[in-house]
Amino acid sequence: MVVKIYGTGTAVCSQRVMHCLVELGVEFELVEPFGQVPYIVDGDFELFESRAIVRYYGAKYVGKGPNLLGRTLEEKARVDQWLDAEAINYNPLVFPIVFNLFVLPRSGVPGNKAEAEAAVEKLDKVLEIYERQLSKTKYLAGNEFTLADLTHIPATRYLVENCNMDHLITGKKHVKAWWEDITSRPAWKKTMSFVESRVSHFYP
Amino acid sequence: MVVKIYGTGTAVCSQRVMHCLVELGVEFELVEPFGQVPYIVDGDFELFESRAIVRYYGAKYVGKGPNLLGRTLEEKARVDQWLDAEAINYNPLVFPIVFNLFVLPRSGVPGNKAEAEAAVEKLDKVLEIYERQLSKTKYLAGNEFTLADLTHIPATRYLVENCNMDHLITGKKHVKAWWEDITSRPAWKKTMSFVESRVSHFYP
Ligand SMILES: N[C@@H](CCC(=O)N[C@@H](CS)C(=O)NCC(=O)O)C(=O)O
Ligand SMILES: N[C@@H](CCC(=O)N[C@@H](CS)C(=O)NCC(=O)O)C(=O)O
Repeated sequence: MVVKIYGTGTAVCSQRVMHCLVELGVEFELVEPFGQVPYIVDGDFELFESRAIVRYYGAKYVGKGPNLLGRTLEEKARVDQWLDAEAINYNPLVFPIVFNLFVLPRSGVPGNKAEAEAAVEKLDKVLEIYERQLSKTKYLAGNEFTLADLTHIPATRYLVENCNMDHLITGKKHVKAWWEDITSRPAWKKTMSFVESRVSHFYP
Repeated sequence: MVVKIYGTGTAVCSQRVMHCLVELGVEFELVEPFGQVPYIVDGDFELFESRAIVRYYGAKYVGKGPNLLGRTLEEKARVDQWLDAEAINYNPLVFPIVFNLFVLPRSGVPGNKAEAEAAVEKLDKVLEIYERQLSKTKYLAGNEFTLADLTHIPATRYLVENCNMDHLITGKKHVKAWWEDITSRPAWKKTMSFVESRVSHFYP
């Protein structure tokens, strides 16, 4: 049974889930629905929340692709720590920037620039903490690419490519190297091509 | 080596971590620091983010106390789903209510009532989704008490006991029964007594 991702190709939460399945080499079908996305249907199992979904597939297909979860209890805990940092501290700052500087203007509505600027200032401080971590380890949770890194990619791409905010990343030596590394992963490139192709079925 | 929780007894994030260790019967010491709390130091392992910490202890002491993580991949995924719902959708609404109706007024600063009311309205909608789930399963992630329930308790207690917002809970049949059930757990009562005692060392 093919995994069904109910999602929108351009939505960062859906891209997070697709990228994870591409990393793991899992076939899926993207179904565009109305309402909050993404959720997955896998046989008779349904699941919401993009980060819960990538954790589920990381565990279900452990050994199939790269290890995305960490290996020891302590490595797994560090992955969880950075997944929470992304969800709680990072994403809520990236969101108002992308929304006000890209999503609204693209629809002809002026964005709230002051709100975006306030978020940029805070995000820069958060990224200084990332810089510190990435000067010690190659990836956020250690020396392997994990879900901790993966979950950051889709929203950060909008920030860098559509909001003129690449200086936030390129101005920090280790964050810049990390960003270049994680976005050059073949699975991420395949995910972007898949989204751009507007095809709905992904074959690994 | 005794686990050290760097935290504040009255902070919900610290209470989340303490409650988890009390459930599991794990000895700890509470150390009050300055700055963001909580984090734990366990031997030479350090970890931030209350939800990552409770996941770590749930896994480390699996088999010791109640199973807080779920047993199958699918049960674990449902626990993850509701942990994320709490962190991303629930807590960010409870926070401005408790902050404006309790934390600020208690320090003699008038809270922003309009902000609190807007959050109450949204929270009530979120709790309707909880009501639907709890009409199907006794706990959020299934028929056992897990981290999904545990992480909701500390902030909800402030809401119910200090903000005059118990109607949000008691007005919904299944949410009300769930709330009574989870707050009557001996480990939660012990956590509250521990906090009130202002003692710093917990012995199971
Ligand atoms: N915490 C959820 C957030 C879901 C979310 O905000 N989804 C957005 C796209 S990234 C969405 O569905 N927007 C359209 C809608 O709500 O109708 C997750 O990570 O899955
Ligand atoms: N996502 C973090 C949030 C940490 C947080 O907001 N902690 C608050 C208490 S609940 C705090 O430390 N406030 C005091 C400060 O930041 O100095 C967690 O769950 O551990």
